[in-house]
Amino acid sequence: MSAALFEPDAQKVLKGKLIGVGTGPGDPELLTLKAVRAIETADVVAFFCKKGSKGNGRGIVDGFIRSGTLEMPLVYPVTVESDKNGDDYRSAIAGFFDQSARDIAVHLDAGRNVAVLSEGDPLFYGSYMHLHLRLAPSYPAEVVAGITAMSGCWSMAGLPLVQGDDILSVLPGTLGEDSLTDRLSGTDGAVIMKVGRNLPKIRRALEKTGKLESALYVERGTMANGHAMRLVEHDGSPAPYFSLVLVPGWKDRPVGGETL
Amino acid sequence: MSAALFEPDAQKVLKGKLIGVGTGPGDPELLTLKAVRAIETADVVAFFCKKGSKGNGRGIVDGFIRSGTLEMPLVYPVTVESDKNGDDYRSAIAGFFDQSARDIAVHLDAGRNVAVLSEGDPLFYGSYMHLHLRLAPSYPAEVVAGITAMSGCWSMAGLPLVQGDDILSVLPGTLGEDSLTDRLSGTDGAVIMKVGRNLPKIRRALEKTGKLESALYVERGTMANGHAMRLVEHDGSPAPYFSLVLVPGWKDRPVGGETL
Repeated sequence: MSAALFEPDAQKVLKGKLIGVGTGPGDPELLTLKAVRAIETADVVAFFCKKGSKGNGRGIVDGFIRSGTLEMPLVYPVTVESDKNGDDYRSAIAGFFDQSARDIAVHLDAGRNVAVLSEGDPLFYGSYMHLHLRLAPSYPAEVVAGITAMSGCWSMAGLPLVQGDDILSVLPGTLGEDSLTDRLSGTDGAVIMKVGRNLPKIRRALEKTGKLESALYVERGTMANGHAMRLVEHDGSPAPYFSLVLVPGWKDRPVGGETL
Repeated sequence: MSAALFEPDAQKVLKGKLIGVGTGPGDPELLTLKAVRAIETADVVAFFCKKGSKGNGRGIVDGFIRSGTLEMPLVYPVTVESDKNGDDYRSAIAGFFDQSARDIAVHLDAGRNVAVLSEGDPLFYGSYMHLHLRLAPSYPAEVVAGITAMSGCWSMAGLPLVQGDDILSVLPGTLGEDSLTDRLSGTDGAVIMKVGRNLPKIRRALEKTGKLESALYVERGTMANGHAMRLVEHDGSPAPYFSLVLVPGWKDRPVGGETL
């Protein structure tokens, strides 16, 4: 990182501001007023994307970028389904975040405000946090919360998720079957992410814990072509990586799917 | 409930629409575009409140209610700190939600759209869900996701909460100390709600699980007078009921509070 990252706080006022902007789960109408203002007034709009793709976050804010705004794609060197425990992955991704932070720092040093788009909520499973940790100690920084994908999904499905003193667990579908079963048996509501090829295992864990009947499967939750269905009615065909399983808590909730 | 609740789906088009509107955690700028539109175009705006108080949700949307909009306060018959396991509480609150649903149904039957304000996200620990379950089977209904209080808090604090394959647990501070300790030891990130008088117990559970050092205490997270501090530096003075404790996951995260 550049030496500028370690200048004292008093210097921050001369610099541009880093703003992590949550773009929500997909529907541009789910942007907050604060996010829209941050995007409209930014000098630079940065966004993560895969090679050859515009990036979902960038797509969501299409209607709000002023002409003349400098756009800064940050192109992942790896794919989401890489082996994340491998040394090669860790080294490539850390180098990518280091370089992205340096590139953004050039703009901040020049007094330009940089909005970094982050699908969903920036500090909730978002790539933005890697930039925040690298840059926020040395530059003025602000985070604009966003609607999470899980919230977009249960809202679309009209599924009350947790209530009162319920415990909610957010679990990656990559957990082993025994671990998943343990966690499901010890929670009221649950959100299971990274479903994809883990769907059959997730289904078995839900069945063992008596939660299969109430579980909902949501595919492309907040996209125009998204849909929700009871998991028990799913035909077992391959699920996209970013599909979700929702398990409502709230034991007193009327049983059955009449609101879905 | 009125007989109208059980008319067939084909009749729904003649009726008003129920819209659960998430107002976010407090800052009106954290309303979504969709929420603002729903509030501005509603015939009736309903909101939960305590006796003698305007209600937090209603306060957040002050600037967006058209003159001429019918306002409908739904006044809780009990307080948030009542014994929720008592039969009296259950019966009073169920009767209150039944009556509120009947009152709203009168407007829906007359073809009026009713927006029900819900602090944070409507289906995430929100009172709105009680109305949704009662009314959505019989009336057109839509839920507008909102920024949750926890998301507002970690964004204000600039605290990256969970990453990659982290497990996140949302836990009520009302859990017993052993149960709290168990859950904390089995999770990466955690959000502990309903802190209030449970703070000393929460602190002990965090200490036992080695998570006290990294825990953040947030008071009135997204209000103008809100603040965040490391829990280990908290003086033990009484905490408000709606304060939160945030425990970041992400084991590889640089230790220390330099971003806070």
